[in-house]
Amino acid sequence: MTDQSPNGSEFDIIKRYFMPLAAGDKAALGLLDDAAVLDVPQGYKLVVTTDALVAGVHFLENLSPADIAYKVVGVNLSDLAAMGASPRAVFLAAQFPKNTPETWIAAFAQGLGAALSGSGATLLGGDTVTTPGPMAFTLTALGFAPLRKVLTRSGAKVGDDVYVTGTIGDGALGLLCLTGKLPADAFLAKRYARPEARFVFAQALAEHMFASACVDISDGLAADVGHICEASNVAATLEAQRVPLSDSARDLVKADKTLLKTVLTGGDDYELAFTAAPKNASSIEALAVEKGLRVTRIGTILEGAPKTRVLDEIGRPMDLGHGGYVHL
Amino acid sequence: MTDQSPNGSEFDIIKRYFMPLAAGDKAALGLLDDAAVLDVPQGYKLVVTTDALVAGVHFLENLSPADIAYKVVGVNLSDLAAMGASPRAVFLAAQFPKNTPETWIAAFAQGLGAALSGSGATLLGGDTVTTPGPMAFTLTALGFAPLRKVLTRSGAKVGDDVYVTGTIGDGALGLLCLTGKLPADAFLAKRYARPEARFVFAQALAEHMFASACVDISDGLAADVGHICEASNVAATLEAQRVPLSDSARDLVKADKTLLKTVLTGGDDYELAFTAAPKNASSIEALAVEKGLRVTRIGTILEGAPKTRVLDEIGRPMDLGHGGYVHL
Repeated sequence: MTDQSPNGSEFDIIKRYFMPLAAGDKAALGLLDDAAVLDVPQGYKLVVTTDALVAGVHFLENLSPADIAYKVVGVNLSDLAAMGASPRAVFLAAQFPKNTPETWIAAFAQGLGAALSGSGATLLGGDTVTTPGPMAFTLTALGFAPLRKVLTRSGAKVGDDVYVTGTIGDGALGLLCLTGKLPADAFLAKRYARPEARFVFAQALAEHMFASACVDISDGLAADVGHICEASNVAATLEAQRVPLSDSARDLVKADKTLLKTVLTGGDDYELAFTAAPKNASSIEALAVEKGLRVTRIGTILEGAPKTRVLDEIGRPMDLGHGGYVHL
Repeated sequence: MTDQSPNGSEFDIIKRYFMPLAAGDKAALGLLDDAAVLDVPQGYKLVVTTDALVAGVHFLENLSPADIAYKVVGVNLSDLAAMGASPRAVFLAAQFPKNTPETWIAAFAQGLGAALSGSGATLLGGDTVTTPGPMAFTLTALGFAPLRKVLTRSGAKVGDDVYVTGTIGDGALGLLCLTGKLPADAFLAKRYARPEARFVFAQALAEHMFASACVDISDGLAADVGHICEASNVAATLEAQRVPLSDSARDLVKADKTLLKTVLTGGDDYELAFTAAPKNASSIEALAVEKGLRVTRIGTILEGAPKTRVLDEIGRPMDLGHGGYVHL
């Protein structure tokens, strides 16, 4: 009933594939101790998030090991970004089915290293176990955010503008491409498989205190803006035609208008949605230019019960089903 | 492909059962934000550990929800104890099979609260997802340890004594009782299902700097003392007859001498094994009395290649199979 690893002992797997990722980081204690030991710099808060991803539930089982590693990392670093935190460390609990080929684990570990590189975060520990069920990964990510500058969901004010980074809907459309429900599209597939967390822009946004509230778009644009509304006790109105689309997404929506709903509610974007006072508009625009990231104003915060309305091109509220409120 | 929770939305489950556990702890942001935000006190290191427990692999599936919660918590707080850290926060990623009864989740959450109470740690965040596989829990535990006083596995010195806390083998024997391979025994079953992490004693041990190395006994006494040997590049000799047994364990071993091997290699003890200079012997004895915890000297650290030898009652090395080196 104790740990049994897919091939060889847990110790061997960790030593061979995961320890190199911690190389040079004293905090990991070589991944050989019971726990990692970190310093937290003075003047900073510690920000912690955990996400579990199960094969077939949270990611397509036929993605490459490297794609899965990018997704596991991206989803978690995106949560840190939403709080304006700089990534520092990740801890991975990997559940591998017995007979997972060692080559698969090697490719996954390599992908993990690549996905973390440049983020500031190192793999500092974890657990590798076998499961009779599907492959699953739980990543816990730790970051630091300057005191009194942490972004939260709860600060949105009536009259604030609502912004998003990047383009919306690519992840959900990419999933439809990868499952054969839409024609293959390499750009959209990559946007689904390898989300890029916006922590560099988010850190600057937090540092300058331009934003009043922030969330990462994982459940879908309408639902996640809804999370800001609930936490801030305000309402939001978004204009569908202002929501920024990639060229691939625009072509698909042009050909099939029903896909606009997928874009607005589909999830897996890992872009940021944030609110800011109108007086910060030009500063935010300048920051976006400086960081080389598209940032678009898509709506407004209003008084009222927590609710997100999305208006179509002639100003009528769209029916998004449950997209604005519960998980799909 | 986004989160679907066993009953109702993830949000409902979290709100109803897990949020109350974070009540009053501002760091949790009500479990409603993307991440938790913590202060780390000056003069302390942050200690982090992650353990994944899969039903049928790491715990018996027919344990009560509360027992499973105690086990998930105990295993992780035991890792913090091994480093001399005070528990501060836990993050839980729960994978529930679809159709997990809400009453089960409620009982599990209640057990989680009970297992955490008195530890100093609060549930500050997590993720609740469905899985087509077995139930599984990944807990990440955060603690604080005073600077320069963190216990590690790597400080054992030639000539040091080897100690253990509590009694050894109860967990492994308890598992045999629970699976019908040994007669039912409520004491041993509880020792298996509800490990008590020794963080109070470990904190004092770290604070006074009495120990040179420390590990928690999860893989089995011989294997875990072996981990100290590997990290410290020393050898250890333990005397089987000095290993402290509970009354229940002693009776079983008396009736069947082969069970001594189970005791020495079986794992799931969640007691501490630590090394200390002989000059600290009386201080350690006094500390054990003060904290009301049994502490027993069971062996010595020697020069040589990393290896743990266990001697029988007439001083012959025992054959423990792979028990001293790899997971069972």
